Amino acid sequence: MADALDELKSRLADHQALDHLAYLLVWDQRTMMPPGGFRHRAEHVSLLQRLAHEKLIDPEVGRLLDELERRDLDPDSWEGALVRVARRDYRKAVQVPVELSAEMARASAEAAPGWIEAKSTSNFDIFLPLMERNVELRHRYIECFGPQDEPYDVLLDDYEPEMKTAEVTRIFSEIKPELVELIAELRDRDVDDSFLVGDFDLDEQVALDYEVVDLFGHRPDTWRIDPTEHPFASGAGIDDIRITTHYYRDHLKSLFSTMHEYGHGLYQHQLPREWAHLPVGESAGLGVHESQSRMWENLVGRSLPFWRGFYPRLQERFPQFRDVDVDRFYAAINRSQPSLIRIEADEVTYGMHVILRFELEQDIVNGRVELKDLPDLWGQKMWDYLGIEVPDDAHGVLQDMHWSSGLIGYFSTYLLGTVMSVQYWQKADEDIGGLDDHLERLEFAPLREWLEEHIHSQGRKYPPQELLQRATGSTIDAKPYLAYLKRKFGAPVAA
Amino acid sequence: MADALDELKSRLADHQALDHLAYLLVWDQRTMMPPGGFRHRAEHVSLLQRLAHEKLIDPEVGRLLDELERRDLDPDSWEGALVRVARRDYRKAVQVPVELSAEMARASAEAAPGWIEAKSTSNFDIFLPLMERNVELRHRYIECFGPQDEPYDVLLDDYEPEMKTAEVTRIFSEIKPELVELIAELRDRDVDDSFLVGDFDLDEQVALDYEVVDLFGHRPDTWRIDPTEHPFASGAGIDDIRITTHYYRDHLKSLFSTMHEYGHGLYQHQLPREWAHLPVGESAGLGVHESQSRMWENLVGRSLPFWRGFYPRLQERFPQFRDVDVDRFYAAINRSQPSLIRIEADEVTYGMHVILRFELEQDIVNGRVELKDLPDLWGQKMWDYLGIEVPDDAHGVLQDMHWSSGLIGYFSTYLLGTVMSVQYWQKADEDIGGLDDHLERLEFAPLREWLEEHIHSQGRKYPPQELLQRATGSTIDAKPYLAYLKRKFGAPVAA
Repeated sequence: MADALDELKSRLADHQALDHLAYLLVWDQRTMMPPGGFRHRAEHVSLLQRLAHEKLIDPEVGRLLDELERRDLDPDSWEGALVRVARRDYRKAVQVPVELSAEMARASAEAAPGWIEAKSTSNFDIFLPLMERNVELRHRYIECFGPQDEPYDVLLDDYEPEMKTAEVTRIFSEIKPELVELIAELRDRDVDDSFLVGDFDLDEQVALDYEVVDLFGHRPDTWRIDPTEHPFASGAGIDDIRITTHYYRDHLKSLFSTMHEYGHGLYQHQLPREWAHLPVGESAGLGVHESQSRMWENLVGRSLPFWRGFYPRLQERFPQFRDVDVDRFYAAINRSQPSLIRIEADEVTYGMHVILRFELEQDIVNGRVELKDLPDLWGQKMWDYLGIEVPDDAHGVLQDMHWSSGLIGYFSTYLLGTVMSVQYWQKADEDIGGLDDHLERLEFAPLREWLEEHIHSQGRKYPPQELLQRATGSTIDAKPYLAYLKRKFGAPVAA
Repeated sequence: MADALDELKSRLADHQALDHLAYLLVWDQRTMMPPGGFRHRAEHVSLLQRLAHEKLIDPEVGRLLDELERRDLDPDSWEGALVRVARRDYRKAVQVPVELSAEMARASAEAAPGWIEAKSTSNFDIFLPLMERNVELRHRYIECFGPQDEPYDVLLDDYEPEMKTAEVTRIFSEIKPELVELIAELRDRDVDDSFLVGDFDLDEQVALDYEVVDLFGHRPDTWRIDPTEHPFASGAGIDDIRITTHYYRDHLKSLFSTMHEYGHGLYQHQLPREWAHLPVGESAGLGVHESQSRMWENLVGRSLPFWRGFYPRLQERFPQFRDVDVDRFYAAINRSQPSLIRIEADEVTYGMHVILRFELEQDIVNGRVELKDLPDLWGQKMWDYLGIEVPDDAHGVLQDMHWSSGLIGYFSTYLLGTVMSVQYWQKADEDIGGLDDHLERLEFAPLREWLEEHIHSQGRKYPPQELLQRATGSTIDAKPYLAYLKRKFGAPVAA
């Protein structure tokens, strides 16, 4: 008779591995799979998700959890955390009927080609039924958890564990007026970024991405970078990290996207080796994940110290920069200007893209809007918040795949993560001392190690806000983020 | 209550999908995975194999089969065949304890790096314990099926369904003296193939491989070709075919290897669409599979008519052939000469490599040899059959990965398939009429369609010998194969 803890671990390891394999299939689908393979793929991904779900909701898991909870394991131990995390996952999973889970997974998988078609033809009519189906499924999902004061809380908790809608609303309300003001202030600032557009050899771009990722650092023989349509980070374990990017011949956006995905990848890479095959060894939540990607993309990758160190290497690879000094380059890559697409937004305007989506999601989930009116509502908010007109739905409501595949409640984690990234950064700087000097010398090990110790190696041992509190002494706080933006963007950015 | 047939189909579809996903993971491992990923991969592959096995041996599958067998389904119908094939798979699977299945899968996965190390250092001592473990596991596997007149039959049946060791022995005994004689006759023939060695641009080789595969034909957007160490064909379904090859800068061997894998890929691609997600829609056996790869590699790809048609295109891509006429080129690619490595052997000597392995396997399974003596036994047979000395174990007993991963009983299918390829070819030529003319005009649709109708679209509806009999009027027969070799190689091959 195996010990209950070993038995639980073995079952959870199967669950987790099936989950990881589903991610790997998605990576394959978006990087390698011949297009015709799509005819098999939705079936295969949903099989893995179904089996992963079955492993988790097995009544034996419940029995083992009951038994282990009676043992009063040290709540600060990994074993204690393992049981706590497993109980949370089990409790949520068993509340949802298997048929509903399967239907949500299928709806999500089947929506992918529909969204692609809707976006490429800028046709909201194709998107609307996918969205309606997913919203309806999400309402049924929320109902599984009984009456709620705030139904959106149920969705949010899946992406940002234990975060409440009211708390997000409070934080975003603090951010919104400050961003609107800063955006207005920056609107007429003239920054020359003409040299960022040109002809950038694709092989050189690939080599550049590998150079940066290797420089930022990781264990040898454990990473790869592949081109894809919409970049993401994935992998099949801590020593199999796969990030993706999208190369454009006429500019270097791929570089910043790669730094972003490096942040996600590093988190997965530095999860606790002994526990990473179990749910307790996973990442703490999407907000923390995003704090890592935003940190490497912006706090490292768009910082002046980093570019003081790295710019000569870039100039060597791309001759068009030889006559541009580093301060002009820095100013150009930090030019702030309202734009239509979230994933291309600068650090200042980015937050408004998220707030817009969060507000619309509130209205959708609470039934305050009709889905057919989303394009108009989107256009109105873009005008109110960023002062720009949306020319078509492809550049508006259809730009993200999230809603079509049922990911409602997800967007806010992008801004929560961005806010937390500055809190983590400031504490890392305090602990390490002279982080800017390290960046300028292209020494990333101190930062990497700090992140490993305080965040990555903690897995899911603590909920996101407790993790943040333990590392920085504070839960989420918008002030450091707002101060950072004003410091960086409020004054002229370069001499 | 679902109908028993639907219920059985649903369970078998899960089983089959898990199996396919395990193949896809192996493809990934051998083409894309960062080397460090190996630390997770054996675990993930064996999880999928374990789950696939569990799906198959579920007692409910037995109950459904009992119920369906009472229905007396038409044995010639797909439904009848589905039940027959499922019964065979179920009967075999339930005889093997789950623990033994898991141990065999684990031993197989864990041996991969050991074999690579043994081969790269030509160190048989590293290989021996892997081999011992696998042979011991195979003996335990054989015992699961009760006392046997011929224990090797149990292993052979897994790769070549319903074939008996005695039948293989009979066929190989007919082939062996004829090959030995032909090899001796060809030994001193002088053929100039010096121009096959040179400098072949790798991008051009990649383009050439795609050109040939596209020319041979398939549905659009369903195939890809990737480099790997040891080429194989894989995929995740009939519209997701992935073949692999190994490029060498100094010769074009990759082209012939690609044609070989095309034959395997085409079989998977043309399996019956409605049944390919079920065991009955799989390929009939490894011998038939190899008949397809050997056919496209040799009967098409090393034929004079094909090269009469295709050679100008090759000359255009590789200037080094501009002064070599097609007859000289044809003679060079068909030069027969004893050599050490099976997968590089020409059509005449190839059979002896297989016979050598089949004979050694008989001795291994029947305990007539000690495993530590394999290198010497190998060397002796290479000398007796091909008249060459084996310089080291990397070029001898360590060259193939099969034994290290427990694939004992597999090798004979390579020669059985080669023999059958000529039988299928002759019947296709008879039915189509003027196959050579089609090849010369680079028209491959008639052959592709004949193979689809008579072999591929039949899935596993019939055992391999019945499939062959139905298509050609005869079961396996070495005479057409021997006659073909003598016709092609016995006389001087080129003017």
